[in-house]
Amino acid sequence: MAAHIHILGISGSLRAGSLNTALLRNAQAMLPQDTSLEIADLSGIPLFNQDHEHDPPAAVHEFKAKISGADALLFAVPEYNYSIPGVLKNAIDWASRPVATQPFNNKPAAIAGAGGRFGTVRAQLHFRQIATYLNMQLLQKPELMIPLAHQKFDANGVLTDQEARDQLRTLVDALVAWARRWR
Amino acid sequence: MAAHIHILGISGSLRAGSLNTALLRNAQAMLPQDTSLEIADLSGIPLFNQDHEHDPPAAVHEFKAKISGADALLFAVPEYNYSIPGVLKNAIDWASRPVATQPFNNKPAAIAGAGGRFGTVRAQLHFRQIATYLNMQLLQKPELMIPLAHQKFDANGVLTDQEARDQLRTLVDALVAWARRWR
Amino acid sequence: MAAHIHILGISGSLRAGSLNTALLRNAQAMLPQDTSLEIADLSGIPLFNQDHEHDPPAAVHEFKAKISGADALLFAVPEYNYSIPGVLKNAIDWASRPVATQPFNNKPAAIAGAGGRFGTVRAQLHFRQIATYLNMQLLQKPELMIPLAHQKFDANGVLTDQEARDQLRTLVDALVAWARRWR
Amino acid sequence: MAAHIHILGISGSLRAGSLNTALLRNAQAMLPQDTSLEIADLSGIPLFNQDHEHDPPAAVHEFKAKISGADALLFAVPEYNYSIPGVLKNAIDWASRPVATQPFNNKPAAIAGAGGRFGTVRAQLHFRQIATYLNMQLLQKPELMIPLAHQKFDANGVLTDQEARDQLRTLVDALVAWARRWR
Repeated sequence: MAAHIHILGISGSLRAGSLNTALLRNAQAMLPQDTSLEIADLSGIPLFNQDHEHDPPAAVHEFKAKISGADALLFAVPEYNYSIPGVLKNAIDWASRPVATQPFNNKPAAIAGAGGRFGTVRAQLHFRQIATYLNMQLLQKPELMIPLAHQKFDANGVLTDQEARDQLRTLVDALVAWARRWR
Repeated sequence: MAAHIHILGISGSLRAGSLNTALLRNAQAMLPQDTSLEIADLSGIPLFNQDHEHDPPAAVHEFKAKISGADALLFAVPEYNYSIPGVLKNAIDWASRPVATQPFNNKPAAIAGAGGRFGTVRAQLHFRQIATYLNMQLLQKPELMIPLAHQKFDANGVLTDQEARDQLRTLVDALVAWARRWR
Repeated sequence: MAAHIHILGISGSLRAGSLNTALLRNAQAMLPQDTSLEIADLSGIPLFNQDHEHDPPAAVHEFKAKISGADALLFAVPEYNYSIPGVLKNAIDWASRPVATQPFNNKPAAIAGAGGRFGTVRAQLHFRQIATYLNMQLLQKPELMIPLAHQKFDANGVLTDQEARDQLRTLVDALVAWARRWR
Repeated sequence: MAAHIHILGISGSLRAGSLNTALLRNAQAMLPQDTSLEIADLSGIPLFNQDHEHDPPAAVHEFKAKISGADALLFAVPEYNYSIPGVLKNAIDWASRPVATQPFNNKPAAIAGAGGRFGTVRAQLHFRQIATYLNMQLLQKPELMIPLAHQKFDANGVLTDQEARDQLRTLVDALVAWARRWR
């Protein structure tokens, strides 16, 4: 019997209609058995200030606890200005401190992105570099970049493009298998 | 007679004792003639939410106005998790929207960083990539990376290392010349 | 009367049917007045060995002379394994030595790429990082990435896609203006 | 009884006195039990030409066979012009074609670099990006960057700096354990 896998989904966008947050909700609807996916809320996390790294705000404390408690992380990351959003980087900066107890260490994770013409390629490169420092165990393949994403969701945020749906399902399955491997 | 050059200094750290913010204060003390340097305050800028890009908070509006009004920008950027701080990226994300009127376009700028063993090398690479998208005119040489920065400032934030002082002065002078070239 | 601008075109591929080399030939057919474009031949440049940097092979000597003599460089770069081709990097490594006399310093340049789904985005990021070290004056905008390039050329290597043709012409014009600015 | 691990060492430099090649020779002298390390020779590999990817030169054929036969790869990579050497990228370009049978897929590997002030940091970032495409299983920690390397080897290429020696031994041990994990 396979152990239950709990995934924490982390979106890089706070926009209500964010396609990346929608991507996580679509993933929730295609989970394999014995798997759950909770979506983190970054909207209450203030700007990082290292002076408070040992006494972080409650929202940061809660975010770190959710990361620690998850078996795997699934990041959905838009590309802003050829990099990852400041909102996401700021949450990572808080969670990464202090280094000795940072919860990303050895955590299985995967990244996906819904974007424009080039599908968040550049943001994902930056994210992988950050993950290397944090020693996240970031799934290498498959990669999921959804170009022209605005054409691939309906007005309710349902991913309607069949190729993208198949890719998302494959990614989620691969992440669950990856998480089981690292337990 | 050379035109006055007004530089906006932007630090990536909110920490009171930040060496990168201190770097900007040291730059203020070595300005060439007909030059001023004001340090921006990012602490009041909330998390970016694209839903509000056309009606940004007052702190964002003010930040964008300062960028527009400056002849040049000087970024002092620590390296967090092999990239630039989320705090800085978040401020850039706000200022970059909407794209058609973003104030970084064609703005002369320079980057410096005070860091650990490798002196913020990786953060500066990410920053340059972001600057390419924004079409900032980012000075290419000299580059200023200050490794082992904690050994090079005194307790009052004065940059005491002579080599680093000389490099900072050279960078500021080059930025002023660069800004004059782009006027 | 505008001064003549001589461009050296450098392709990252040795393949006879290379679409990137074809891109340079298409550029030759859309040059503005008082402009010429010669395509460099990298096929005779051996593997770089720093032991011979002060006495390079004849093909390297010739390549360096062509760079020095050009008013501007136009790179056409395929993406191999998420980076620039080794063939191109090897030619750059030779030409960059010894540093004190390397011919890329302050040379106006532009980059274009014909590629697959994401149009050489990742290779261009690496190239820009290399150009920063070499202090090439690499045109920032427009960027030219041609995705699905195999659909956009005919069997004779003529770029038939009108959007891509317009973008290439715009890039060449911008490079010529950029080169005039730096003279 | 642990299975024997055969490592293929790949240096990015052809220079006779290369400190990166020397690093591999030093690694040969500190191997754990049941481990061997052979150093590949890239000097006979010609420039990549995709026209010949299905019928590569003998030196390429041999290089690919050595990669396939190895349990793990150890790359020693100098930084040239803020990236990896063209010589190394060229060898990787050959070995990566055709994609369906490329031998890097799922191959355990590690990277080290002996360099200047910043210890090949930038080259290692590019290498990690390339490895992601190739789906190499590249050890994430420890990272080994040796700054000011010319001060840390004696005239015979022996790594004399104790800290660097300890780091190299730790890296080799971690690579062997990593290779056993992936068998």
